[in-house]
Amino acid sequence: MAEGMRLSEIDAVEWLNCTTPQTLEILQGRVVVIEVFQMLCPGCVAHGLPQVQNVRRTFRPEDVMVLGLHSVFEHHEAMTPAALRAFVHEYDIRFPVAIDRPGEGDLPRTMGKWGLEGTPTLLLVDRRGRLRARHFGQIPDMALGAEVMALVREGTEG
Amino acid sequence: MAEGMRLSEIDAVEWLNCTTPQTLEILQGRVVVIEVFQMLCPGCVAHGLPQVQNVRRTFRPEDVMVLGLHSVFEHHEAMTPAALRAFVHEYDIRFPVAIDRPGEGDLPRTMGKWGLEGTPTLLLVDRRGRLRARHFGQIPDMALGAEVMALVREGTEG
Amino acid sequence: MAEGMRLSEIDAVEWLNCTTPQTLEILQGRVVVIEVFQMLCPGCVAHGLPQVQNVRRTFRPEDVMVLGLHSVFEHHEAMTPAALRAFVHEYDIRFPVAIDRPGEGDLPRTMGKWGLEGTPTLLLVDRRGRLRARHFGQIPDMALGAEVMALVREGTEG
Amino acid sequence: MAEGMRLSEIDAVEWLNCTTPQTLEILQGRVVVIEVFQMLCPGCVAHGLPQVQNVRRTFRPEDVMVLGLHSVFEHHEAMTPAALRAFVHEYDIRFPVAIDRPGEGDLPRTMGKWGLEGTPTLLLVDRRGRLRARHFGQIPDMALGAEVMALVREGTEG
Repeated sequence: MAEGMRLSEIDAVEWLNCTTPQTLEILQGRVVVIEVFQMLCPGCVAHGLPQVQNVRRTFRPEDVMVLGLHSVFEHHEAMTPAALRAFVHEYDIRFPVAIDRPGEGDLPRTMGKWGLEGTPTLLLVDRRGRLRARHFGQIPDMALGAEVMALVREGTEG
Repeated sequence: MAEGMRLSEIDAVEWLNCTTPQTLEILQGRVVVIEVFQMLCPGCVAHGLPQVQNVRRTFRPEDVMVLGLHSVFEHHEAMTPAALRAFVHEYDIRFPVAIDRPGEGDLPRTMGKWGLEGTPTLLLVDRRGRLRARHFGQIPDMALGAEVMALVREGTEG
Repeated sequence: MAEGMRLSEIDAVEWLNCTTPQTLEILQGRVVVIEVFQMLCPGCVAHGLPQVQNVRRTFRPEDVMVLGLHSVFEHHEAMTPAALRAFVHEYDIRFPVAIDRPGEGDLPRTMGKWGLEGTPTLLLVDRRGRLRARHFGQIPDMALGAEVMALVREGTEG
Repeated sequence: MAEGMRLSEIDAVEWLNCTTPQTLEILQGRVVVIEVFQMLCPGCVAHGLPQVQNVRRTFRPEDVMVLGLHSVFEHHEAMTPAALRAFVHEYDIRFPVAIDRPGEGDLPRTMGKWGLEGTPTLLLVDRRGRLRARHFGQIPDMALGAEVMALVREGTEG
């Protein structure tokens, strides 16, 4: 998955916090910020998830959509859909969260086809559906605010 | 459970991070710091557990023993023993952790007999096995360091 | 001083960290971020100044210029130019800092003509020299990163 | 100045926040925590001074006395007594602060006779007036709370 290319759709077995599955197709016209996480990943809990909750407070919903993608590649017995629902409730996560479809080995399908290295990974998708940045690990709040705004200001004609 | 009284033993279905169950009886002679937590409780993850890991680094093991007690009173389907083992691994928790025995309703047995209000709760037990303090919620590091040292310095003759 | 209007020039008795005085005239074409501070203002030291140092690391110098304005309106005997030089050295402040010209009362001239309420105040000036935002007190890093980038992306033709 | 030895008295030109000079002689019977600082030392402002303000909130005044010692060994022109008074006001420092007496070179007299390395330095003096610990740089809150309580619990008979 190269930056600048159109990002393929999330392959989810289930979505939380929304009534119908989200697709990048439908979200075109908005910047999409995707937090790829695992509920038992300390860096996701301490930094990644609070940061995208902050993105959601900082930008207007008509400009920026935040999505979570729960991509379990270890401790599968612990990070079940039921456990994730409890986690989402306790941490007051209100944006849509997709549960990545299990694959043949440990790696779930979306994480596999996107070629991600681990969690937390933050993906920025522009208004036209193209992947524009991916950050594995932490990124400072100020730099992220700047990156997202740069995409917001591109407009849709790009 | 009144402060100053001998604390009754933990009723556990299983212990992690130790080969035999811990008892307050056997631990007599040492100050015991017990962190009562749930793995999906945000305050436990952000404050309570890192703080007792800090207690463990600050005091000598011959003076102070840190124990965890996983007392699940909600989201039982999510906070299973298997999930807790994954959590303990990911958060690098190295002190003994007891899994509180399920009770008749939602409340597990040790939490019930000790009359605790919720998680995180921190209990301080003196060298003679008496409960000396309990803190529901956060307590500053400096105050906790002082409280634990006060018990350490009491000696065992008390 | 209304937002959207051209910001009048800084009236300084002295500049630190630069060989010639900075003017908004000369800086046209770049976004200018001005931190109005006092060296003995706790909020400036703890938040405002570290934040604009972060702005300076986050954006390219050809896009964004950070300036400090030391506007002393209290404790004049303590916050002398000599004291400010020591402060700037100890806190490793490397952007140009203007010393606001003393006025007739306690209020220095630039702070007076700009109508500022206190310190820290952060001013954002667009590429065409117009004041676009002012923040008295703290602003989150992510929101500031977004605001500055929005101005960076306006271009100069605006 | 060796640990375990009686600490010699502070040689001050002036005391702030108290009506008569403090002496270790008079303070005997209490633990004394001395923060040696400079008002333009970033580590003192960010960590050392807030920490001893925390000591003052954590322990009872009849057990623990906090003193500040302003020992200027650089930027003498900036860190004058007038500047220190403004600093103490702005940072809401309420414990007695001694201004160390200037020496022959840059080093002030108390700092010189005590053989200190720099600022911030934290000194712990027991109830009998003996120096028991000195920390140059940062020390964690929990460890400091424990150290101070250990001295509080020694009693005066020691």
